[in-house]
Formats: sequence, C-alpha cells, structure tokens
Amino acid sequence: MIKVGIVGGTGYTGVELLRLLAAHPQAELTAITSRKEDGMPVADMFPSLRGFVKLAFSAPEKARLTDCDVVFFATPHGVAMAQAPELLEAGVKVIDLAADFRLKDTAVFEKWYGMPHSCPEILEEAVYGLAEVNREEIRKARVVGLAGCYPTSMQLGFAPLLSQGKPLVNEMALIADCKSGVSGAGRKAEVGTLLAEASDNFKAYGVKGHRHLPETRQGLEAISGRPAALTFVPHLVPMIRGIHSTLYATILPEARDTDFQALYEAHYRDEPFIDVMPAGSHPETRSVRASNMLRIAVHRPDNGDQLVILVVEDNLVKGAAGQGVQCMNIMFGLEETMGLMQVPVLP
Amino acid sequence: MIKVGIVGGTGYTGVELLRLLAAHPQAELTAITSRKEDGMPVADMFPSLRGFVKLAFSAPEKARLTDCDVVFFATPHGVAMAQAPELLEAGVKVIDLAADFRLKDTAVFEKWYGMPHSCPEILEEAVYGLAEVNREEIRKARVVGLAGCYPTSMQLGFAPLLSQGKPLVNEMALIADCKSGVSGAGRKAEVGTLLAEASDNFKAYGVKGHRHLPETRQGLEAISGRPAALTFVPHLVPMIRGIHSTLYATILPEARDTDFQALYEAHYRDEPFIDVMPAGSHPETRSVRASNMLRIAVHRPDNGDQLVILVVEDNLVKGAAGQGVQCMNIMFGLEETMGLMQVPVLP
Amino acid sequence: MIKVGIVGGTGYTGVELLRLLAAHPQAELTAITSRKEDGMPVADMFPSLRGFVKLAFSAPEKARLTDCDVVFFATPHGVAMAQAPELLEAGVKVIDLAADFRLKDTAVFEKWYGMPHSCPEILEEAVYGLAEVNREEIRKARVVGLAGCYPTSMQLGFAPLLSQGKPLVNEMALIADCKSGVSGAGRKAEVGTLLAEASDNFKAYGVKGHRHLPETRQGLEAISGRPAALTFVPHLVPMIRGIHSTLYATILPEARDTDFQALYEAHYRDEPFIDVMPAGSHPETRSVRASNMLRIAVHRPDNGDQLVILVVEDNLVKGAAGQGVQCMNIMFGLEETMGLMQVPVLP
Amino acid sequence: MIKVGIVGGTGYTGVELLRLLAAHPQAELTAITSRKEDGMPVADMFPSLRGFVKLAFSAPEKARLTDCDVVFFATPHGVAMAQAPELLEAGVKVIDLAADFRLKDTAVFEKWYGMPHSCPEILEEAVYGLAEVNREEIRKARVVGLAGCYPTSMQLGFAPLLSQGKPLVNEMALIADCKSGVSGAGRKAEVGTLLAEASDNFKAYGVKGHRHLPETRQGLEAISGRPAALTFVPHLVPMIRGIHSTLYATILPEARDTDFQALYEAHYRDEPFIDVMPAGSHPETRSVRASNMLRIAVHRPDNGDQLVILVVEDNLVKGAAGQGVQCMNIMFGLEETMGLMQVPVLP
Repeated sequence: MIKVGIVGGTGYTGVELLRLLAAHPQAELTAITSRKEDGMPVADMFPSLRGFVKLAFSAPEKARLTDCDVVFFATPHGVAMAQAPELLEAGVKVIDLAADFRLKDTAVFEKWYGMPHSCPEILEEAVYGLAEVNREEIRKARVVGLAGCYPTSMQLGFAPLLSQGKPLVNEMALIADCKSGVSGAGRKAEVGTLLAEASDNFKAYGVKGHRHLPETRQGLEAISGRPAALTFVPHLVPMIRGIHSTLYATILPEARDTDFQALYEAHYRDEPFIDVMPAGSHPETRSVRASNMLRIAVHRPDNGDQLVILVVEDNLVKGAAGQGVQCMNIMFGLEETMGLMQVPVLP
Repeated sequence: MIKVGIVGGTGYTGVELLRLLAAHPQAELTAITSRKEDGMPVADMFPSLRGFVKLAFSAPEKARLTDCDVVFFATPHGVAMAQAPELLEAGVKVIDLAADFRLKDTAVFEKWYGMPHSCPEILEEAVYGLAEVNREEIRKARVVGLAGCYPTSMQLGFAPLLSQGKPLVNEMALIADCKSGVSGAGRKAEVGTLLAEASDNFKAYGVKGHRHLPETRQGLEAISGRPAALTFVPHLVPMIRGIHSTLYATILPEARDTDFQALYEAHYRDEPFIDVMPAGSHPETRSVRASNMLRIAVHRPDNGDQLVILVVEDNLVKGAAGQGVQCMNIMFGLEETMGLMQVPVLP
Repeated sequence: MIKVGIVGGTGYTGVELLRLLAAHPQAELTAITSRKEDGMPVADMFPSLRGFVKLAFSAPEKARLTDCDVVFFATPHGVAMAQAPELLEAGVKVIDLAADFRLKDTAVFEKWYGMPHSCPEILEEAVYGLAEVNREEIRKARVVGLAGCYPTSMQLGFAPLLSQGKPLVNEMALIADCKSGVSGAGRKAEVGTLLAEASDNFKAYGVKGHRHLPETRQGLEAISGRPAALTFVPHLVPMIRGIHSTLYATILPEARDTDFQALYEAHYRDEPFIDVMPAGSHPETRSVRASNMLRIAVHRPDNGDQLVILVVEDNLVKGAAGQGVQCMNIMFGLEETMGLMQVPVLP
Repeated sequence: MIKVGIVGGTGYTGVELLRLLAAHPQAELTAITSRKEDGMPVADMFPSLRGFVKLAFSAPEKARLTDCDVVFFATPHGVAMAQAPELLEAGVKVIDLAADFRLKDTAVFEKWYGMPHSCPEILEEAVYGLAEVNREEIRKARVVGLAGCYPTSMQLGFAPLLSQGKPLVNEMALIADCKSGVSGAGRKAEVGTLLAEASDNFKAYGVKGHRHLPETRQGLEAISGRPAALTFVPHLVPMIRGIHSTLYATILPEARDTDFQALYEAHYRDEPFIDVMPAGSHPETRSVRASNMLRIAVHRPDNGDQLVILVVEDNLVKGAAGQGVQCMNIMFGLEETMGLMQVPVLP
C-alpha cells in the first residue's frame, strides 16, 4: 500500500482526492493537514465521506508527512514550493495540484502569480503532469506539477494537430473558447460564485489575460516544438462540474486533404482516458461527470478551412484530482487506470 | 415626488428596492449610502441598472438623509434602530427591511438577535409592516418594521383560518414547512450558498430554531387574539428567488363543515396582491417571480381533518422590497399598487 | 457470475442500473431490451457508458431473457406483470422497479394505476423490496416489487418509531412533506419538467392524492402491525437527483421520555446503507448523490411534542436501481453491499 | 389604442409577448389563437398572467384577426406565410417571430426549413426586423420578419466593424461562439431539454449547420455590402433565458490603429436598447434578464490582432418578443421604447 498524505483537503480538489483515494485499492490515506480544522474528522466537514474516510485533519506539524510515500498538495499557489524541499529530502514524492511547478520560466511564474519562485532548482526537475503527453517523464519524476483544468482540455484537444512533423493549422492564431462549471473557482466564500449570482446566468471573464494562457502556450509549444499563439476566453457556466472547450484552428492550405477524424483516432488509440467520439458528435460535460474520461469530437463545418474541436472533461477529476491519481499510479508503477474506472454519473 | 433614501443598497433587497423605485412614478431616489462604496455609481455594481439609476453610493455622513421624505433600511439588523431617532426627529419616515422593529418584546429581540434594543420607545410606536393585516396602522405610522420573508407567507397563509371569531383549527399545533430560494440568505460571501454547494442539492436548516419563528408566532397571535404554537422548518431550494410555504393545520371537529376555499376567497377578495387560486391548484414560485403577488391554494386531502395550504411569494418582492414600497404607498396616501404592477416573469 | 437481463433500459432507472451493474464484480449484463432501439448500442444513447457497456439493445423477442438468472424491469407500470409468469416458469428471478408488485390489494392497485392486475397469484408471493424491513423474505423471494422512491424514504424514516411494541407517536396523523429532484419524473418528453419550466422554480403537486400514498400506508402498517394515516405532500425541486423527506409526528404523552436519537441509532446500528446522523444534523441530498446511502436526522424542536425527522436519499439509487442491486445481492447470497460502495459525489 | 392579435400564444415567445403587451400603454390585446386551447383563459395556462390578461384562447376561425391593426405570429415556421396574404389584404400589419420572412432567397429558405415558400411576393416586400439596422424600412413596412435570437446578437455585435466604408477585419473568417439558455428551444416536450438532461451540463449542438447561419450571413452582407463568411457554433447553457455571443474577428493590418472601443460607442450612441459597456467589461446575461437591452463589450487581448466582442441579450425579449414590440412601436409611429423600459431583473 502506498502511504498518501494530503496537504489542504478542505477545498473541492481536496475532497475529490479523498473520494478517489478512499476507493483506491493500493492507496492508504495516512495524513491530511489543515491548521484551521486540526482534530476535526474529515467526514464532519464532508458528510458524503461518512463511513468511507475515518481520518481527521491535523495541523501540519503533527501530520508526519515525511512518513508518506507521496504527498498531494491541494492548496493555494505557493504552499507546495515551500514544503517540497523537505519532503523530497525525506524521499517523499510530491504531486502539486496548484501552479507551483507548472511554468518553467520563473519570470513568467512571477508575473502571473505575483510571487517569486522559492525553489527554482526543484522547478527545474519537476515534470508537467499531463500523462498523455509526458508519461515517461512522469514515471521517473520526484515532483509533478499537475496540468491545470483548462490547460488539460486545451492541450489534449490541440495535441494531435500540433504533434505532427509539420504544421497542419495556423499555430499562431489558435482560439480556445472555454466554459467551466463553478467548482473551478474553488470552495472559497466569494460573492461572484454564489448561487444567487452565478445561476441562471452566463458570462465571460479574464478576457484580458488568465493564468492558464501562459501555461497552455508553454504546453502547446512543447508538444509541437514550434512557437504557438492562442486567444483564450474562459466563461462561467451555471453548473457545478465540467469544462467544455471549443477550439478553433485554421487549416493550412497544404493540409486540406488531411483526414482529421482519423488523425485524432490514431493519436489517442491507446489512451484509456481519452475518447475520440464518432464524427459529428457533440460531447456533453455530463458524459464524463465524476470520471477521469475526456471526450473529444472533431468538426470541420462545410468541409471548409475552419476546424472546430470540442473537448469535455470533469474539471475536478481529469482536470485535477483524477489526473493526480493517474500520475501517482504511473509514478509508483501501478496500472494507470487503478482506482479511476468509475462510470460517469448520468443523469 | 417623494424623496427616497436607501441605507445599505448593496444587498439583494437593496438592489430590488432600486429596481422597483427606479420605475415608481412618484418616487425620486435621492440618496443611497454605503461607506465602503462611497462615490461608486450604483450601476457599476449592478449593471442591470445602467441607464435606469444615475445615483452613486455616498458615505452616510454625506448622504443628507434628513432631507428625504422616507428612508428605507436594507441593512443588517441593528443599523436601523441606531439611525431612526435622528431621522424621525427630522420628520423623515422610516421603513426597515431588517428585524429591528418587528418583535415587540425586547427580551425576545435580544434573545434571537443577540443585541440589546437601543430605542424601545420607537419600537413601541413602530408598526408591523404587513399591509393585508395592518393597513390602517401603516397609514399613520412614522416607523414601519417590515414583515420578514418567511413570516409574510406564513401569516398570510394562516390568517383567514385564525381571524375568525373562534378557532377552526388546532392553533397550538400548526406546522409550516417552508422552502426558500438562496437569495434569502443575502448577498454575502459564504461557502454554504455557493453555486457549487447549494445547487443540485436540497436541505433543511435551522430546525432547532429560527428567528422567523417568534416573529410569526407574534403575528399569528395578533391576528387571532389567541395563543398559537408553530413548528417551523425552513429549507434551502437551489433557485434564486421564491418562497413556497406548505402549511398544515388540523381542523377542529366543530369546524368540519367549513368551506375553506370560500373562506379564503372571501377573506382576500379585495386584496390587490393576494390571489386565492381555484380549488385544486398548485401554485409555483415562478408564477410570482419578480412581482409583488402572493398566491394561495387551499387543499383538504380526502376531505379529512388535515388542511394543507400552499403559499408562494417572491421573497425579494412581497417578502421584502415590494412589501416596503407597498407600505410606502400607504404611508404617503398613494394608490397602494403604484409602481408594483409588474407582470411576473415566466419563464 | 450472475447473468442479468434488463427490460426497459432507456429511462433513468435503467441507465442507473447499467452504471451500477457495469461495475458489479458478480454481475454479467447479458441482455437489455428495447423494441424501439433494437440494435442500437446502449452507449450510443448514453455516452457516459462508452467503454463500460458494450451491449446493444435488442427487441424483446430476440433477447432470450429466459437464459438470465435475474431480470430487472425498469419499465412503465404493467410490463413486469405481463412477462413475469414466463420468466418465473423458466426459473428466472424477477425484480420490478415499477409498481406491479408493490400493492398487495389488487383493488387498490387498480384504483391507483388504472389497470387490472394480470397475475394476482404472483403478486401474492411477491416480496416488497425494502431490505431494511424485509431482508429475510427477500432472501427467499422469486419476485421482488421494489419499494418506490418516496415510500423508501418515508418508511425508513418512520420505521424506528412505528416498530416498537406500542405506539410512541400519533400514528393516525403522520405528515410527510417530501421533495424530489426532477429525475423522479422519468426520462419522458413532457413540458412540465423542461429545464425552462422546472428550474428556478418550486411547487407542490399531487396534493389531492399520489400513488405513493397507499404504498407507504401499507408499508407503515406492515411495520407497526397497526393502522396508520398519513398526509403526503410531494414537491418538485429544481435539481436532478435526490429526495428530502421532512417527516412530522406528534409524540404521545406516554412516550415523552423517549430518547429518540438513541432509538434511531439502535434501530439502524447494523445497517450498511442507513446513516443516523448526530443530533442536530441537517442532511443534504448531495451527501448521498450517486450512492446507495440514506441519511436520517432526528429533531425535537424545543423538546416539545413535535418530532421532525429529516431523511435524504438518491431517488435513482437507494430509491430505485441501488435498492434493486441490494435486493439482488441478498437474493443470490452475495455480500449485501457488493458493487454498492461508491463514495457519494460531492460537490 | 392599437388592436393586437397573437397567433400561437402558447409558447415562450407567445407568453413573453403577452407579458410585454399587457403592460403596453398603447396596445390592446384583442385576440389570441390556439385551436387546441380554444376557450381556455390564457391565465389558466400561464398563472403568472392571472389578473393581468383576461383574454381566452380562441380557435383561429373565431378570432377575427382581420379586425386587428397588427398580428404577431409566435408560431412554428410556415404558419405566418400561410395567413399573411389574407391579413395584409384586410389592411392588417404582420410581425412574424418565426423565420418565414427572414431569408430573402427562397432556395435558401427551402434548403434550411424543408418547405417551399408559399408567398414569395410578400417575402419580397417583407422587411427584416432588426431596428438598429433597418429602422426606416421597418417604419414603412406592412410585413416584418423579425431577426432570430442568435442572429440579433451576432449582427449587432459585428455591425460596427462591418459598416465602415472598408473592411477592418477579415470578414471571410468571422467566428461566433454562441451560448443560449434553454428557452431558446421553445416550450416543446422533448427529452433533450428536460431539467434532468440539460441542467448541470453543457454542450455544443448543430456544429454541422444551423438555420441561423444563413440568416446571419445574409444580414452581415447587407450591413457591409460585401461578402462575409462565418463559423457559428451554438451551445446550450443550463439556464432559462439569455444569449451570450463571443465573437472573434481578426484585425486587418491596415486597421491596426483603429480605436475599436470608440468605434462601437459612436456607432450605438443614440440607440436606446444598445449599451456599449466600458472597456474591459464582461457583460452578464442576467444584466439584461427580462429586458430589451443588449450589452456589448469590446476586447483586444494584449493589443494584438484578435478582436473579441462579447454580446448579451435576453433571447425572449431583444431576441424575440421585445424586438417585436420595438418594431410595432416603429411601425405605428409610437415612441420606440414604449412599454419596453422594464428594469432588468437581477438577481
């Protein structure tokens, strides 16, 4: 059994990690920290876990995280990089659900997250946690910076196009019109995500700039080995879970004969969590609700030059906690799908 | 034109007052206070008011509320009673949407609201703002403590039964199973009313005791002139607006021959905002959405001894701001329905 | 492996059965019928099942249901009783999610369901599928008529009170104010349950009479061995899944000293799917979302004579498909919890 | 008073027309037809109208529509063109909320609507009902084919860009990523728009082709006088009302110095129903809920070549019934805003 610790289990990605790990046959939850809730049984905060999780929160200094085999950080940005050195020193692997180990360029990190990076040498060895792109690096990693929720959907949606030897689409004019459920904003007391504000309503936000833009651009360039430019417009959907990314790319004249459906199917043929749907499909977010699946549909309206790629994922699973467990499975040599084959909950 | 001031216009009852008053032919919005938002145009906070409300928030000391004819308090409990004396002194009428002037017994007020009452003499003259019960007193009032949202639905639902000369139902075993949309919790940053917490979910709360219980009991006893006992269980509905109260009363043996449908229709025959629906109806909250109407249906399943009264209202209109404007109209000798005849918004 | 057939898998209880059975270690889905969808892969209708269910719908005459060990009916009322005789003849067990085998009195069945009962002799041997009440009978049953969604919550909520040797509450004046998510109405094209009709809205329905009333009364009387009378008011909640029943019972004078919390805890001590929460709790429907758990909280406001019992369940799981799998496990001598220990999905 | 008839008042655009016309100071509802509901008071179907609309539905042959001054068609496609000739003959003006008089090319109409056009000569004189583009033609029109809901938002969003003397953006590669509330699908019994299907869910639809694409392309070309090409991807949002269109256009090199914010503000300076919001704004659909306002925000991320225009409207008001009343006001020489100045309902 792998001894697992969680730092910061009081948010949505934390409780989702608990849901998944409580049912994982090779994971043993051994510690979960929260200074504020020290001593409180986890199931008192989340009654859904009554009968499944016996653990109580403990203050960080009591938690003995260094006895764990792996520690997940489901914390605000900045926490993982503060604690990672000591854990690595003790031989503990680290999986960060926040952004501390995503952006390779510390200047970019500082610009978008408003804090200096405290351990650039660890950042250097950290592996970007997107298994379908980086599986082999993750296998050997001590530190994984998990891909963000939107970036996961955008990168996996564009990857088959960008990973060919030569460009098929105009990679300098990509557009991602993304829509997320409200849990993406976290379990924080804020007026903007109250039910009375956000339900029966729809809006864009962060059009001027969003932290997931530099992360995605970095990822796309890593995939293609070429420069990329992206317009990213996130929107808030009055629902709990789910991301739907509508991706637009202009086909280059020399690529007009490509069979894009076949390209996508071939690219993801062996991926257990990626489902390329039949041509003409419209994937729904609920078709992956509470599961680690990501579904993709490829459209080329009127057989023209505009490609439209539809991608759905559960932002808390494939976009966060499930992706984390998937990486853990890889890092510890387990079956990659272990503990992650829940059937999506529909309706 | 009546010069109207609003203290605390940044919450839901405040913005609803603004919506109604902006379209009221005899009201002129002259001041709206918020220390925190001093100088900010109201329409910057609530873009729905762009083009309709030019006013900006001003700090209380700049607001010159004493120049108004009437001031509404859409504030947390305790604010109105602190400012009422000065306003009354200046000849300004006061309408409080909070609870400062609802409970006649200061000991009860202190028990449920956790603060002493600072002006019991004003409380003494204050009139309970429920026009269908207290119309004449409201006409002469200087201070009105508006009925709460749940209490409005419960009192108007039980009133026809309780206002007869002798009891028709067991008045010591009334039950009110009430359901409210989330806006009833106010525009406050709290985890429990986030969309990701409160949507696709249903729960009771406050079963041990809720502030609206003593207020309603006081109101029921005032209506009947007899003691009353009530079990009140509020629930949170994943919707923005609306209260649905399901009221249960046991018919006394001597009242078994009563035609309750006729009783209700007669009682409310002349009320412009009360709609007693045909026998067998199931009123929906959306049938009064954004309007000052309250609809009632009377059921007596199997012609037995259990009466079931269904009541719907919009908690922000008939349960708060609309009721306030209705009282203002009465206090200033205007047509009672002035500015309040919006057709409900359905769907 | 138990060979399982499903008749009528295109509704919500059908797809929920598929979700649960696809992950059940001892069940093998061998046939699913739908005349209309003959030949269509199940996963084409419900993309959430892509990769989990390979089966296609087949027309009833091709389905060879008589080769199954057990057949679930997730059909409209009337279908199961038409096909049960042939299946039983062939040695196949039958579990009906509809109402064909619930009501023991065929006259009552005919009154509420508007059709004669076609096999009263099978009805006679059929066992009412509510494991916490009827476990031993279910173990030996050939035919199980599963308890309805509302009736499950009402009976399990009242059972500890009614199953004592003598009455503790007024059993002739029970009240159940119940609230259900919209999936309870089924996957049928109807105007009343469109999102644009039912969301941001709340209403009661069926106050005059609802089919679940006679079923629940029969169940309560079976539990107590005494007559019972119930007022049942169902309401429609703008959410997908979940039932919240708020139950009211008047404590008899001779039972005032009862410790009701202890009574409930003792009654359900060994039940794997019933969670009696700590005193003062307010269970939320989402705390059991997508799981077979049912949670109960016991309240006695002001220590008075009115007991308030709060019950939550997922109407599609404990109220339908999960209850069915639970009964199947019992009927085939499996661990009762097998395939049913999914952690509830929250948020 | 203008005598108004409505054909087909049982859908969402019909009831919205009733809501608006019931409060219109110069409109007198004189007839509303429905064969199926002949004799039923309108308020029995829509209890929100109780006390506001006394009219009953009548069968078409009894309705005496030829006595009206104007008749609105809130019907399925094909009805208006069947009845328009007789009404025009009788001197009655016609406003069609469906698509019969939108597409000028009958071949295109037949392709997308699957029926031949029965009165091409009336189509020829019909005016496209988008007041901000066609005001003068509407003033003189006998027949108006109202702009569709999506097309209204797309055309008004692109119009300032396209109506300059020379192209500012690549007009052959426009993208409109549009999101609509479920009421846009109409009040029809369909599985796909049930609350249990469409809530807590998000999906695209009609990516292969949607009827609003040819309509919008025709409109854009009429505005610019130049060919236009558009990729249009509609999505379904789990909310009742509202359309949010996110429009993408690539700035041409020669137009890089344009001040687009100023361009939009100038273009719509005198429009009572168009609100160009301050730079950097993110309009929300609820900011126009139940009102005829349409709000626009102009973004140019990183000052690059990609323009992002955000547009919100209420699909049932500015996208249908409100637009219809606006056109009626123009056609009858009334103040254009008459009966249309409702303050949006927020929250």
